Amino acid sequence: MSVPAVAAVLCPLGSHRVVEPAGALPQTAWKVDNTPHARANEILCAVETLNIDSASFKQITEACGDDPRAIGAHIMATVHERGKQHNAVTGSGGMFIGRVLEIGAVLAARDDIAVGDRLASLVSLTLTPLFLDAVDDVDVATGQVRVRGKAILFESGIYARLPDDLPIEVALAVLDVAGAPAQVRRLTKPGATVCVIGADGKSGLLSCAQARERAGAGGRVVGIVPDASTPGARLLVEHGYVDDLIVADARNALAVLERLPAALPALADLVVSCVNVGGTEVASILCCKDHGTVYFFSMATSFTAAALGAEGIGKDVNMMVGNGYAKGHAVVALQTLRDHPAINDYFTARYAVRG
Amino acid sequence: MSVPAVAAVLCPLGSHRVVEPAGALPQTAWKVDNTPHARANEILCAVETLNIDSASFKQITEACGDDPRAIGAHIMATVHERGKQHNAVTGSGGMFIGRVLEIGAVLAARDDIAVGDRLASLVSLTLTPLFLDAVDDVDVATGQVRVRGKAILFESGIYARLPDDLPIEVALAVLDVAGAPAQVRRLTKPGATVCVIGADGKSGLLSCAQARERAGAGGRVVGIVPDASTPGARLLVEHGYVDDLIVADARNALAVLERLPAALPALADLVVSCVNVGGTEVASILCCKDHGTVYFFSMATSFTAAALGAEGIGKDVNMMVGNGYAKGHAVVALQTLRDHPAINDYFTARYAVRG
Repeated sequence: MSVPAVAAVLCPLGSHRVVEPAGALPQTAWKVDNTPHARANEILCAVETLNIDSASFKQITEACGDDPRAIGAHIMATVHERGKQHNAVTGSGGMFIGRVLEIGAVLAARDDIAVGDRLASLVSLTLTPLFLDAVDDVDVATGQVRVRGKAILFESGIYARLPDDLPIEVALAVLDVAGAPAQVRRLTKPGATVCVIGADGKSGLLSCAQARERAGAGGRVVGIVPDASTPGARLLVEHGYVDDLIVADARNALAVLERLPAALPALADLVVSCVNVGGTEVASILCCKDHGTVYFFSMATSFTAAALGAEGIGKDVNMMVGNGYAKGHAVVALQTLRDHPAINDYFTARYAVRG
Repeated sequence: MSVPAVAAVLCPLGSHRVVEPAGALPQTAWKVDNTPHARANEILCAVETLNIDSASFKQITEACGDDPRAIGAHIMATVHERGKQHNAVTGSGGMFIGRVLEIGAVLAARDDIAVGDRLASLVSLTLTPLFLDAVDDVDVATGQVRVRGKAILFESGIYARLPDDLPIEVALAVLDVAGAPAQVRRLTKPGATVCVIGADGKSGLLSCAQARERAGAGGRVVGIVPDASTPGARLLVEHGYVDDLIVADARNALAVLERLPAALPALADLVVSCVNVGGTEVASILCCKDHGTVYFFSMATSFTAAALGAEGIGKDVNMMVGNGYAKGHAVVALQTLRDHPAINDYFTARYAVRG
């Protein structure tokens, strides 16, 4: 019996697993119940690897003096205490890789997952009930931790079946930014002008590929990059993913503004911010035409800088908060890589070497 | 001649007025040129009143020991030094009320403004060139400062003609949140279900009125308020602006979640966040149906809390950053008040008394 009698109400968000404080959701809870049995609306997985997020892993590594054994003990202690790998100092978690052991009765009709499938969790470890038998190996260089244990995915949890045709590290690099290409695919209309800021990074490249594909021959794709000589920037130009490249620091709104008459004379219908620095909100807004959409995928975005920035320059644009999730986003992101060999090669060279 | 020969390039954003540092936009500039003559793409106004924003005014008042004369001198000094009323401590400004003296040739075709009109600037004083002859009176209770001076509105600047039929303080209270009702009017479709969080506040009430009007008889409007006994909450129920009221602290996502099956069984097509506290992002997302829209009008919104919150619960929703500006927003906001006498009475009782 996988459904204890006490679980009278099974919450899609997993609040039935919260131990303390009462009323919290799993992510904000101090402690969750990590009993390794699937309730009726849960998926139980055998966990192989924890990918600790880089902020958290850096903190743990420093606290443990770079000693893999001490790091392993630290992780065991956290999971024992909180029922999840939730770093109390950084507030962050990571994701896991494992295999499906059991799918609760309520979720039996799901056709995207089966017992035995290998998957990556796409929700944070900070909300994932985790039960560890042992930590076998800690890779101090990558933050990948080999473990034996079990984890619970909630009804609302998201995950991606790992593909057979891509190295795991490449798949993970893509899944990490899966929301961006999926949203760009959704938002780009045939013939549209799309501007991708931070075009030569991981999410920027995938976004350019989707923008090019969807905007079509009648559309226009412009990238903004700080440096035209990076491998990513050269790839974009050489393979025609962008029609033009603006080389500018997007924190300098005026420098971007000066380049717009030549590169984006009618401005963009869709601006996608894929930068990893703050202070680029106004440049993003300046690139967008009235009633167009600015999609802030960058986690360095300031809500107030965007809101006040648009008001300060009287720009009537739609500004969207990047949602890391969109239905089918993992499938779209991985397919983007398969459909674009040049980008696949770039990701493989950059990420698979670590494997 | 109002166009000096040196202004070879007139920037719509006013960067031609930036003195230092070079390359900045007026808002980020330390000093702007406050010469009180309109260039070809500028509007010159005679300024009557500065409404210093509350954070800035509190700081100035404390620094000046509540002495109106010292506060006046402080403002004169700031404007003399920076060419704008930009508080270096708080980083904030305010807005001005004045009359149009001159409209530059480039803007002569504008039909929303004429010389002699009384207007309120809807862009911040932190980017508005201001030249002061004198400070005549400082109202320590309200932060309103009577001055004689001149200000420049840029081509991209926004403003609202002050209505003749509303007390100025009421008009200002409405204009301060004008983006909310205008955006709700745009986003609400006939028959839609709309949920307004923080429904009994200034922007919440105007948003509910627009949602009710646009959603129509076949639609559903639900408000979330922390307390059903406030004048605003009672108004919403008594006058039928909401079909149901959820009384809950929106920071407690689980408390909101528990009320949804009864109040919003199919969830909302549009969720509007008008709260003035942080930590309500997840509750906002939970109220929204898949592919619906969450509109964050609250400046207390955290970008990362929204982005990670949606991902953490696997919600495929559109999340929008509230834009304080939308074409015609001031007209829509003021008309909302005129069309809804109960809300007009509420605003008048609450704000006009100060006048």
